[in-house]
Amino acid sequence: MTSPGKDAGKKDKLLFTPGPLTTSASVKEAMLRDLGSRDTAFIAAIRAIRNSLLGLAGLSREKGYECVLMQGSGTFGVESVIGSAVPPGGKLLVVINGAYGERILKIAGVLGIECEALRCNENRKTDPGEVAGRIGADESITTVAIVHCETTPGIINPVEETGSIVREAGKTYIVDAMSSFGAIELDLEAAEIDFLVSSANKCIEGVPGFSFVICRAGALDHCEGQARSLSLDLFAQWQGLETNGQFRFTPPTHTLLAFERALEELAEEGGVAGRAARYSRNYDTLVAGMREMGFVEYLARGDQGYIITSFRYPAHPAFDFTEFYTRLGEKDLVIYPSKVSDADCFRIGNIGRIQESDVRNLLKAIASVLEELGVENAG
Amino acid sequence: MTSPGKDAGKKDKLLFTPGPLTTSASVKEAMLRDLGSRDTAFIAAIRAIRNSLLGLAGLSREKGYECVLMQGSGTFGVESVIGSAVPPGGKLLVVINGAYGERILKIAGVLGIECEALRCNENRKTDPGEVAGRIGADESITTVAIVHCETTPGIINPVEETGSIVREAGKTYIVDAMSSFGAIELDLEAAEIDFLVSSANKCIEGVPGFSFVICRAGALDHCEGQARSLSLDLFAQWQGLETNGQFRFTPPTHTLLAFERALEELAEEGGVAGRAARYSRNYDTLVAGMREMGFVEYLARGDQGYIITSFRYPAHPAFDFTEFYTRLGEKDLVIYPSKVSDADCFRIGNIGRIQESDVRNLLKAIASVLEELGVENAG
Repeated sequence: MTSPGKDAGKKDKLLFTPGPLTTSASVKEAMLRDLGSRDTAFIAAIRAIRNSLLGLAGLSREKGYECVLMQGSGTFGVESVIGSAVPPGGKLLVVINGAYGERILKIAGVLGIECEALRCNENRKTDPGEVAGRIGADESITTVAIVHCETTPGIINPVEETGSIVREAGKTYIVDAMSSFGAIELDLEAAEIDFLVSSANKCIEGVPGFSFVICRAGALDHCEGQARSLSLDLFAQWQGLETNGQFRFTPPTHTLLAFERALEELAEEGGVAGRAARYSRNYDTLVAGMREMGFVEYLARGDQGYIITSFRYPAHPAFDFTEFYTRLGEKDLVIYPSKVSDADCFRIGNIGRIQESDVRNLLKAIASVLEELGVENAG
Repeated sequence: MTSPGKDAGKKDKLLFTPGPLTTSASVKEAMLRDLGSRDTAFIAAIRAIRNSLLGLAGLSREKGYECVLMQGSGTFGVESVIGSAVPPGGKLLVVINGAYGERILKIAGVLGIECEALRCNENRKTDPGEVAGRIGADESITTVAIVHCETTPGIINPVEETGSIVREAGKTYIVDAMSSFGAIELDLEAAEIDFLVSSANKCIEGVPGFSFVICRAGALDHCEGQARSLSLDLFAQWQGLETNGQFRFTPPTHTLLAFERALEELAEEGGVAGRAARYSRNYDTLVAGMREMGFVEYLARGDQGYIITSFRYPAHPAFDFTEFYTRLGEKDLVIYPSKVSDADCFRIGNIGRIQESDVRNLLKAIASVLEELGVENAG
């Protein structure tokens, strides 16, 4: 390193959001290099990343699973799977209880794929029984898609039970695990998942720039020639990675180097179990402290995951969300608005390079802002 | 900055390639931050980038032009334009003299867009007269696409003359300026370009992760509802950026911060003219030195641009490209294989954070490797 960048040394705000997240200094410093996309060191990094991701899922190529990396945000990854995995003339059932389920439906619509929505209440887990009913009632359904952690409210959906039903019916099963993979244990084999999609900048704590797909090799094989896009062709992307270890089109080299480091740090933390433990501690501390101030969660505890939590606005007339958000921002703490459609809520994420002490500081700051606003009780 | 990354301090190889390129330390250091995607500082960076890109092209919103940023590699940007700009039932004429023209054709094919190829010889500029002929002969053509700098051999195509013909015929005009924008003066208004696509990691010397599109506002308006993809919907992406200054889907935040810095450094170098001057000096020094050793360029001087140069393999039987490439790599110098189909060539790029002294060092290294290989003359 020669000279520090103009903003280096300046402390960034802590991000209590669904992502992009706060990452470690060493993850960002892994980007202080320029590697050619054909460089053997870079090709080795791609290989290591693909193998580590399979390993994180308890899978391997020997077990019949593959890992594909795709440029762009998580949505690009989801679109690559929907556009590649649904066969011509196929029909997609999308199980929806939030904005990300709706997005899958929208992707299929734009791609001209016949699809049907199974809409569930935003404040409840999806119901595997309803999925069984829909599949049973419509033989033309070929593919089922669901979101694992629907961050709209912060729900964890029952992807394992749903998977058994989808497998039994012989359909292809797609899981959007954007905000859960790496921090919530999930057995892809037991859950009968054909395609799981996640992103670099979520629980693995890399920086944004690409998504990844973990899939059954047999299901991937069926994608050949089916893609509705050249850039987002999942099978061709896999084939490219297999042929020479490289991306077909310019990869986000720096982002990948950061991700390689992030995977090492995840392993150092004890893998998925270790990360789940830290995020759970963050969550427990957050919810206890928020409740103490009178805040009420949007979800029932049984439906709530430890990734991100929606809180209802306090009923107190002096509470103003924009003011609340802005004043926390002035203290270098970033929370997030909510996308829940039937209640006024905001969200606080527990993921990223955030420790329990950071959550405690956030709670103190929230208490102080409430006092400034004249909100005595946040209930 | 806390501790240096594990590879910090290690000197990276210099990249004499078409990209990703060698970038400045300060561009990379701009990535040592985590900004939220809704952060006002980040939204300001996006705005500054979009305005600077228009400014680089001598354009502005007042002049009726817009700038859209799109996640993914340059190909993702090209696909977003092809998939959004060609109307339903439209027909695309692709002017081709290399791999990137072929790629546009492939994109259109996968998207189910009717298209026709006007293939020209790889070692010659495309011929505007032939474009006029094709357009005249087929009224159903709605859109014409061409590559400005076809890096396959390193040719600069006559996009201005072609533009006049396309405009006269009332067709939409798309230019892939991936490897030229920012380093070759191009008047979009005079060239009658409706959509120009380029990428973060080329002549502006940012790091890879997104592409950008500069377009006539009127042409962009026509794209509404036409996209064949949700992720790669150019109009929706623009609309998102206009509505709240944000990307619709998670942006590559770090890559964008690096790009903002890269644009500042381009301005410090004297803008397009300043950068063109440095790249031209690199090119002149390279070609003079290579000729001295006996190397012969693939292209005639009049067809050759100063971005990247293809050289024929020496006829000497002791020349082995893999060995040549590997030994240069051991000296931390990376050149590039060629995609030219009718001759054995390799390529050397003059772009990225490379100075004339670096080119001189490369020439010395090439002379030394030739000597090691026993190639007395590279002709």
